[in-house]
Order: sequence, then structure tokens, then C-alpha cells
Amino acid sequence: MKIIVIGASGLIGSAIVSALTPRHEVIAASRKSATHPVDITDKASIAKLFAGLGTFDAVISAAGGAAYRPLADLTDADFAMSLGYKLMGQVNLARLAVGHLSDGGSITLTTGVYAKEPPPNAAAIAMVNSGVNGYVIGAAGELPRGIRINAVSPPLVGPFRLNAAASRVECMTPEDVALAYVEAVEGRSTGRVIDTRSYARRT
Amino acid sequence: MKIIVIGASGLIGSAIVSALTPRHEVIAASRKSATHPVDITDKASIAKLFAGLGTFDAVISAAGGAAYRPLADLTDADFAMSLGYKLMGQVNLARLAVGHLSDGGSITLTTGVYAKEPPPNAAAIAMVNSGVNGYVIGAAGELPRGIRINAVSPPLVGPFRLNAAASRVECMTPEDVALAYVEAVEGRSTGRVIDTRSYARRT
Repeated sequence: MKIIVIGASGLIGSAIVSALTPRHEVIAASRKSATHPVDITDKASIAKLFAGLGTFDAVISAAGGAAYRPLADLTDADFAMSLGYKLMGQVNLARLAVGHLSDGGSITLTTGVYAKEPPPNAAAIAMVNSGVNGYVIGAAGELPRGIRINAVSPPLVGPFRLNAAASRVECMTPEDVALAYVEAVEGRSTGRVIDTRSYARRT
Repeated sequence: MKIIVIGASGLIGSAIVSALTPRHEVIAASRKSATHPVDITDKASIAKLFAGLGTFDAVISAAGGAAYRPLADLTDADFAMSLGYKLMGQVNLARLAVGHLSDGGSITLTTGVYAKEPPPNAAAIAMVNSGVNGYVIGAAGELPRGIRINAVSPPLVGPFRLNAAASRVECMTPEDVALAYVEAVEGRSTGRVIDTRSYARRT
């Protein structure tokens, strides 16, 4: 498959690229990319990226930020950034990808377990993660030509595992999280919010 | 209690006002109100309404629209309207209410079962309903002075019950849906998404 990974330079994105590369043609796009730059907050930038790539079989977004701040400190600008970046950035990516995906192709977006299990300071994150999940559930049944759409919902991701005794925060390695994206692309699911904690390998 | 109902002229809003009036001081606000006009898409309009009402014990929003259109027909303007009205209109109402609510007061917003069970044409609705639910879940733990926040999630509401044999759509009366808002205001819940189908009275 020809697979576009957006946010490919990030912790999760680079693990997705590594996981897919042995079996697929992977095109790595990101804000910083010299060859495939894209800013998902700018619809024209997404359109330009896709226009240069011809038809592809899957697009994965591991991009999108949102404000992590105490509720009382969240500003109008924090909400606008969160909506424009993690929510509409990814929704616009999904909307624009449809015209470029092959029959039976797939769209995979990124949300997070903070949609339903937010710690303090994550109200705006919970809002946009939940919004993306809702869009995925709503859009799945209306996509043409067998195109699928799913959201992957990771917990906190890091290169280390937090000591469970010291923190309630669950932490997964990017390599384990990437398995859920592989499953979303290679499998047949649609309209799912995939909790990556099912993919945590015991060590 | 002194309770502000926003969207009080609507099908659900007027049923909420009727249900609360026997036991509480209810102030009915809506776009069309002569005495308490408010447009929740305009933060200044919400601030002006609250400034004229002193301290209150609860605010209920039964306001907020979103685009109901086929996925392929949803425009940038449809998404912007949906985000500004049902999502950020209600989130801004919640944010601004905090400074006016008494200790232990409550905020109740409206979402809908289309957040998780959307029919065709409801991708934008699923997105914003889910976004409001996420905000409620995220904000609940960070509100000061015992202030509570919940979302009420009704199915299709009408003055009639659809024939179950003729349609999968569930329909509730506004009077039954209003019971969930009463419970949200008079009860002790916070951070909940209340599915009003639990409140359907068998007839």
C-alpha cells in the first residue's frame, strides 16, 4: 500500500513509519519535512500536499495539538488553537483525503484516552479528542467507495514506562502504540475509536 | 433555586421551564426573548445576560444548533457554524457562568445521542455533541466552589412518539426529556453525560 503519514517526525509518527516501512510504501509528511511539508491548521497546505502525491491507499494523522492548561486559565485563544489544530486540522485532513484515496482506502486519525479519562488541565484536550471521535463515528457510514475511517486513542506515550506505583498515568511506548495504527490500516474496521492500551505488550 | 434557562423558547427549553417553575425561580432566556435576549454564538451577549442577573444557582442550556447534512455536502461554513454554536456557544456559556454561580451551583448543557449513535447526515452533529461531552467530563474536576457540570443527551424529541415499527429513530416527548434536566439541577451529579432515554415514561 501507498501510505501517507502526517506528523511523521513526532514520537508516535516516527514509530508508525518504522512499523509500516517493511511492508508498504510510506510517505512521511510533517511541518518540518523538507520533501513533504504540511501544516494541518491550514487547509490549503493539506490540499497542496495531497495534490502532489497522486492516489494513495491510506492516510494516517499523528498530528494535532491542543491546550493543556488549568480550566480557569484556558483563554479564547487556547480554545481556538485546540479546535483549529487537533480537531479541525484532522477533520479537514480526512475531508480532503477522500478525493485522493483509492477504493477501500483508509483514514486514521489520532485522539487520546483523555477524551474520556482526562486528568486536571485537560478540559480542552478532552473536548477536541471527543470531537474527533464523534466525527469518525459519524462519518464512517457516509464515506464513498468503501473508504474507512478510524481514530486511534493512545494514553500518555513516552520512551519509558512510568512506575505504576508512583503515578496513575499509564504510559505506553510509541512502538506499542504504532501497532494500533498498523491494525487500523491493514484491518477492516471502520468507525472505531481504538484504545491502544489493548496493544500494550507486557515486558 | 434561581435558575437560568437558555433556549427557553424551544421545544425542550419550554418543557424544562414548565418542569422547574413550580419549585424554583426560573429566568427564561432565548434569542427571541424580549426581557432576557441572548445569542450564545456571541460571548459578549452571554456576558451581558449574566451581568444583569446577579448570582444564580443553576444555568441550563437547551440552545445550540449544528449542521445536519450529508457528509459530502458539509462545507467549511457548516463546520464553523456547528463549532461556534452548539460546541463553543455552550462551552463559553459554561465558562462565563462560573463567575455568577453560587457555591454548589450547577451548569447543565445539551448534547444528544447522535454523539455516539449518529444516523446518516449527522457527522458534524456527532462531532460537536461529542466535543461538548468531552468538555463536561474534562471540566467537572476543575470547577471551583463545588460547582457541578453535566450534559443532558436526548434522542430525537417531538410532541409525538414515532411508530417503533416504522422507524429505528427513538423519539421522546419534551416533558420526559425535561426530567433529566431537573435531575441534573436538583441532584448531585457532576461530569456526567445523562442519556435521557432512562427518563422515558412508559405510556
